[in-house]
Amino acid sequence: MVKRNPHIIKLNAGYLFPEVNKRKRAYLEKNPNAKLISLGIGDTTEPLYPHMTQSLVKAAQDLGTAQGYSGYGSEQGNLLLRNQIASKLYQNTVSSDEIFVSDGAKCDIGRLQILFGSHTTIAVQNPSYPAYVDTSVILGQTGEYNLEQGNYRGIVYLPCDPKNNFFPDLSSAPRTDLIYFCSPNNPTGAVSTREQLTALVNFAKKNRSILIFDAAYAVYIQDPEIPKSIYEIPGAREVAIELGSFSKMSGYTGVRLGWSIVPEELKYEDGSSVKTDWSRIVSTFFNGASNIAQIGGIGVLDDQGHPEMMKMVNFYLENAQILKNTFLEMGYEVYGGDHSPYLWVKFPGLKSWDAFEYLLEHAEIVTTPGSGFGAEGEGFIRLSAYGHRSTILEAVQRFKSVGVH
Amino acid sequence: MVKRNPHIIKLNAGYLFPEVNKRKRAYLEKNPNAKLISLGIGDTTEPLYPHMTQSLVKAAQDLGTAQGYSGYGSEQGNLLLRNQIASKLYQNTVSSDEIFVSDGAKCDIGRLQILFGSHTTIAVQNPSYPAYVDTSVILGQTGEYNLEQGNYRGIVYLPCDPKNNFFPDLSSAPRTDLIYFCSPNNPTGAVSTREQLTALVNFAKKNRSILIFDAAYAVYIQDPEIPKSIYEIPGAREVAIELGSFSKMSGYTGVRLGWSIVPEELKYEDGSSVKTDWSRIVSTFFNGASNIAQIGGIGVLDDQGHPEMMKMVNFYLENAQILKNTFLEMGYEVYGGDHSPYLWVKFPGLKSWDAFEYLLEHAEIVTTPGSGFGAEGEGFIRLSAYGHRSTILEAVQRFKSVGVH
Repeated sequence: MVKRNPHIIKLNAGYLFPEVNKRKRAYLEKNPNAKLISLGIGDTTEPLYPHMTQSLVKAAQDLGTAQGYSGYGSEQGNLLLRNQIASKLYQNTVSSDEIFVSDGAKCDIGRLQILFGSHTTIAVQNPSYPAYVDTSVILGQTGEYNLEQGNYRGIVYLPCDPKNNFFPDLSSAPRTDLIYFCSPNNPTGAVSTREQLTALVNFAKKNRSILIFDAAYAVYIQDPEIPKSIYEIPGAREVAIELGSFSKMSGYTGVRLGWSIVPEELKYEDGSSVKTDWSRIVSTFFNGASNIAQIGGIGVLDDQGHPEMMKMVNFYLENAQILKNTFLEMGYEVYGGDHSPYLWVKFPGLKSWDAFEYLLEHAEIVTTPGSGFGAEGEGFIRLSAYGHRSTILEAVQRFKSVGVH
Repeated sequence: MVKRNPHIIKLNAGYLFPEVNKRKRAYLEKNPNAKLISLGIGDTTEPLYPHMTQSLVKAAQDLGTAQGYSGYGSEQGNLLLRNQIASKLYQNTVSSDEIFVSDGAKCDIGRLQILFGSHTTIAVQNPSYPAYVDTSVILGQTGEYNLEQGNYRGIVYLPCDPKNNFFPDLSSAPRTDLIYFCSPNNPTGAVSTREQLTALVNFAKKNRSILIFDAAYAVYIQDPEIPKSIYEIPGAREVAIELGSFSKMSGYTGVRLGWSIVPEELKYEDGSSVKTDWSRIVSTFFNGASNIAQIGGIGVLDDQGHPEMMKMVNFYLENAQILKNTFLEMGYEVYGGDHSPYLWVKFPGLKSWDAFEYLLEHAEIVTTPGSGFGAEGEGFIRLSAYGHRSTILEAVQRFKSVGVH
């Protein structure tokens, strides 16, 4: 018979969000009249603005016409979309040839693990978005899960916590082939400064590592001094791959659209091009984002769509500020929310899953336990600022009334 | 520095279709006025019918409304769509819980290789759709490429040719963990009978192998005696995963929508559920098909969409018959085209790539060389019947006038 994949057996418990959903469903079964508020998974809630919608509608309509119908797209994605990403989001510091349109950053993370293969060593921030670790485990890059330490053998975890301003101590960090780094960070909401990112690029360069820079929340950065792309840092083109996403930028979590950037300068030890191999992986394991989503993306980035996109981002940032102020007023230790839709709230004296359960039972609010993102997240809860304004205001009332603990 | 993935290095030449495109572009550069006809890649050409289009348009419009907006979908895909796939395409012989909506069969093939992992052995038909082999090589399931034999060490190739009616001799086939099998077949256009599929299921059962049955072209089957799903064969639920796709069924090559089926009965050696692990892979390496595509798929399968879908399929099948009759009249050995949009034409005395070049230069028709699908495809050309009717008729004239060789 066929043996179960030994690497999948290593995976500790369920993927975080399905586990959150399971507990949420269990609560609803016991309390069928509960009016749950979800500040858990970072899922967009606001309808698309008119021009954004119209771009998608037009793309769908065109599929019904002889002139507008299209089948398989070009391998790296719609060229007009790639040109717009290059010019509108990167001021042409990257070229459309270096951009690969995808169905989202999470899917690209998995494909990047396939690209680099099972003999690769990786470093991640701790806490970090679970997909980096889980895809690495499944592809066999790690040892077993260490229950006591709450981590996998073979992965280098870079602690990011309030003590180091959520930026790892690179002086003590060992070399790995890949470094996954997310800024603005999911889950902590922290954002790395130009100086920090310069140190990170230099660290990768010194170690001849490849930096996988997850910039899925870049559009949320408010401070013009903070880089929105790793390619604003000199030398980054020789060491970094960047991931971007329309999910949180334009409410496309369900529409599915993202991109990866692999610069020409990025090479393997043997001098061969990482981009060439990436192109092969993408054309073998993927067949393009939906053409409707791609045309929609062009509409998001054009002169009419861009202001709509910024309005949507600002709406969610206002939500984040409302939540953040609530916790500050209540005297809580709270991070993020300024350049990010996520808040990272410390619940002293409670473990993360206990705080999750407490909030679920007493405030009927679904959150995400910080420990689900890594051992260093223990004691924190991640709050997502995605929600209708009325929902966020209701959540604020509930947080205030339960006092949390 | 980071080492190049050794398994990617094993890959022989480019992925077939990019290679075909490269040669096509090279020809166009030399002959900028050439009016090329593409019967190469199987890419749909006809606009969607009104109800199909309207379903997609409505889905896009709804994203602009508070009531209709949706973010991330449920993990296995839209439940209404899964219910429709179960009832309309499988007469409820599979349940919606066993269906996983995807962005297409090719992407599912890659994810299935991740599911089973690098220690898995595989068998493929020879010739076969390249994605089975290439994803297997990249994940490290194989040895090096053997240039003389035109195959990879470690993969079991099951010859399928006119001598065995395109069904492999299972009596001499060694056991593997996985068996990839495609019917109606891409590239040969051959379709397996109930008796053959019964033998295949029994073979998998005897060997305790898992059969991955690619039914992406099932809707093209005209003979009611030929099974459209492997689950029509008794015992298949214990051994088979099935892949389906809207790409060729409803002109969704660009829209991106497909599904996989993993029955509850399918178990690993340790008795654990394959479906549980598949769910984990899908939720880690994928984030759902576009919600617009999923709503569109519901429209394809409803009472108004279904007749449109069949009209589209019949149109392409008529194309296939026109092409097939042409080659039969010219005295060629030609297969497929009856229950499939593909024709498999023998060019005696010419190697596949030579026939490809000959047709490109003399008829300005792009085809796909049979040898690109495996060593047993040598001497054949695959013709796709996707095209406007006028294009197919023009291709017929050109084939007749060049006499081919």
